[in-house]
Amino acid sequence: MSDENVVIKELEPWQKLAELEELSDIAAVSEYIDNLTSEEQRRCFSRLSGAEQEYLIAQLDTQVAADVLESLPERQSTDILQALEPEVAADIIEMLPNHIGADLLMEMSAEDSEAVLAEIDDVIEAAQIRNLATYEWDTAGGLMIDEFLTASLNSTTGQVIQELSAYAEDHDDVEIQYVYVINDDGQLAGVLRLRDLVLKKPSTSIKAVLNWNPATVSVNDDLKTLVSVFEENSFLAMPVVNNEKALVGIITRKAVREATAQQQTEDYLRASGIVAGEELRSMPLLTRSRRRLAWLAPNIGLNLVAASIISRYEDTLQAVIALAVFLPIISDMSGCSGNQAVAVSIRELSLGVIRPTEYLRIIWKEGFLGIINGVILGTILGLIALIWKGSLVLACVIGGALCLNTILSVLLGGLVPLLLKRLKVDPALASGPILTTCTDMCGFLLVLSLASAVLPMLK
Amino acid sequence: MSDENVVIKELEPWQKLAELEELSDIAAVSEYIDNLTSEEQRRCFSRLSGAEQEYLIAQLDTQVAADVLESLPERQSTDILQALEPEVAADIIEMLPNHIGADLLMEMSAEDSEAVLAEIDDVIEAAQIRNLATYEWDTAGGLMIDEFLTASLNSTTGQVIQELSAYAEDHDDVEIQYVYVINDDGQLAGVLRLRDLVLKKPSTSIKAVLNWNPATVSVNDDLKTLVSVFEENSFLAMPVVNNEKALVGIITRKAVREATAQQQTEDYLRASGIVAGEELRSMPLLTRSRRRLAWLAPNIGLNLVAASIISRYEDTLQAVIALAVFLPIISDMSGCSGNQAVAVSIRELSLGVIRPTEYLRIIWKEGFLGIINGVILGTILGLIALIWKGSLVLACVIGGALCLNTILSVLLGGLVPLLLKRLKVDPALASGPILTTCTDMCGFLLVLSLASAVLPMLK
Repeated sequence: MSDENVVIKELEPWQKLAELEELSDIAAVSEYIDNLTSEEQRRCFSRLSGAEQEYLIAQLDTQVAADVLESLPERQSTDILQALEPEVAADIIEMLPNHIGADLLMEMSAEDSEAVLAEIDDVIEAAQIRNLATYEWDTAGGLMIDEFLTASLNSTTGQVIQELSAYAEDHDDVEIQYVYVINDDGQLAGVLRLRDLVLKKPSTSIKAVLNWNPATVSVNDDLKTLVSVFEENSFLAMPVVNNEKALVGIITRKAVREATAQQQTEDYLRASGIVAGEELRSMPLLTRSRRRLAWLAPNIGLNLVAASIISRYEDTLQAVIALAVFLPIISDMSGCSGNQAVAVSIRELSLGVIRPTEYLRIIWKEGFLGIINGVILGTILGLIALIWKGSLVLACVIGGALCLNTILSVLLGGLVPLLLKRLKVDPALASGPILTTCTDMCGFLLVLSLASAVLPMLK
Repeated sequence: MSDENVVIKELEPWQKLAELEELSDIAAVSEYIDNLTSEEQRRCFSRLSGAEQEYLIAQLDTQVAADVLESLPERQSTDILQALEPEVAADIIEMLPNHIGADLLMEMSAEDSEAVLAEIDDVIEAAQIRNLATYEWDTAGGLMIDEFLTASLNSTTGQVIQELSAYAEDHDDVEIQYVYVINDDGQLAGVLRLRDLVLKKPSTSIKAVLNWNPATVSVNDDLKTLVSVFEENSFLAMPVVNNEKALVGIITRKAVREATAQQQTEDYLRASGIVAGEELRSMPLLTRSRRRLAWLAPNIGLNLVAASIISRYEDTLQAVIALAVFLPIISDMSGCSGNQAVAVSIRELSLGVIRPTEYLRIIWKEGFLGIINGVILGTILGLIALIWKGSLVLACVIGGALCLNTILSVLLGGLVPLLLKRLKVDPALASGPILTTCTDMCGFLLVLSLASAVLPMLK
């Protein structure tokens, strides 16, 4: 008996799940999945095919299904939801907090999301979700929660504490920090902190303890603004108001941090050529292949542009074939130097220590660094060429080309993210290919034109 | 007058600062800096030389200096602090929360940090900071705060609320959520939530409202564990206990999120070749140059290994010089395909949907994708070669080599992060260079050995 237990324990969650599924006791499956951690749920679902995922989510207890969709990466949840019958999807959406439901619906096609919204029984909830889904995900509107606790200006502290306690019972998983006080015009009059309420007599008017001048954010504020607002103060949450100063939601520090992390992850993935949103290996093979090719195919074009330089100098290359050995080295080394400068520029932009217009500062700071590193790297590679191929002229051509191209690469690498930022193109997405193409072209041109100039001495 | 105001407003903060500095009214400078946002402070200091930064921090009001050091990137703050006289540094450290002071001191050499600690007047505080500085930054001990509110088991709710209110007055910038109750042995007995206290009679014993079985983390838990613990529950903070179950600190959700973001940033910088910690362009030129070269120089070695393949086939290359045009294209395209697979593996590892031992899953999932993308990309490049150079045999060599090398690259790219993770090497740091070297070698070898095999038909 104890041996058998050990074996079951050692099974991976999805193997255990497969066993339960065979027993086709859906209540047991629901309970089993409910007891997994979020990470185990993700691992489990990543081992199922798309059809299995959809089948399981549709069969599970609705609350458990909603929990699973909250655990999974957003892209995967949307894929599953989109494949479900609209009624089933609507039931699950109703179990999710409105802002999470809205996030998932936003990723769907307009048609599919309307079909799901039409099936949501509670028309007010459907309207709220529809409204939340109109905001860009990385604005205050897209990140806010539309559930919060309000009080009227005429309440007493005792009444507010009473309401708060009732609310806390219903929302056991939400930490309640603030109560928002609304005036007769529906505008935000002020904010009450829980701790301000605690020590007053229950009959105190809240007007006496209210913070009448609360910090707010506008529903259209972008993520960068929100990050700096939360950096400047220590609030856990802030009220979000529309143009009429009406309170439309609250945004938590947590939501801002999560959005920042999401943006960083996307930046990283994009910089690596995963450009169509997150890819998980549980997604259908052809989708994964198509999305990756969408990035690779244009790269062939960029590469051809750079390689066409080599083609123009085939005679020189044929005369001094040793050059062919060094072309990929110079291309790769220049790319590395340039990428370092790109990373520093992207980091400085995100820290706010440089503005997209400060080209001169980049030229100044990278120029000197380029000269130092260029001379050092050029000397190293030149010496290697001298020892390996025994030609001083070849060594000078190779070393000189790497030196000059390093200077060019760090300048370009430093400047490209600023230029892209000004053109409102994501620097993380486009800096790499632009940089590589330019540094390859310049590198090939430098090596081959220098070599052509001194060809008689090289042969 | 109004014109002059406009001009002053348009000056960048550091220009305004320079003006104030000339007036050498340090009180005005302190006030000016104090009123800047964190981002403006960072921008301002990034425009000063190291010597100016140190001079200014030493002159400023100590509290303002401490605020500035909190705004600046950690690396920069440490550099400044290290250059100050130990007494001055100690005064500033005393103004910072202990855990931030400890973070800064940890980055210094042991000798320098001891010199600063020796100058801290409050011996208890010095001991606390010294203790915090013994933990790795990415563990519960390194991320915890050692300021928290405790109560004894014999208190009433009224007494605790009273203490809480006094504490809240003193710590206006900290949101108080929990009170930690300690038993007679100094162990954590339980946790009280603010809202549990609010609705009881002041004479209620806290034993009646206490959560006797609070979730805790161990002081040595690593960041990955902490992330999943906070993902599984909704606490804003959790108590940190040592092996004797004594409460040694609290760790906030915020600290865990910030640490995660910091780790992601470092991963991104490392993947781009900024390997020695954050670089800002305000750092000394030679330091920046040296740190970047530390990454570039070994890359020359890796490149030589790959290029040596070309050298072995110089005869083939000389015979069919058109091959030289395609070598860099195949090297770059294979690198791109491999990097996509690296990014997906790193992401799946961090989401926990794959374990470092699941090689077979990667081979299965990337293998098929590699075949599809390899055939498509190989066909495209083959057709281009056919049209450009007019040789069907050349087209087959180039297309075939890219196809095979794409398959190899996605397999390698998918597997390398898992292998590095098992070897406890940071995948973000080492995946890129290992991948590029291998795919370059294989790519060059494939093109040139295929070409050699069919050389009579190519000429």
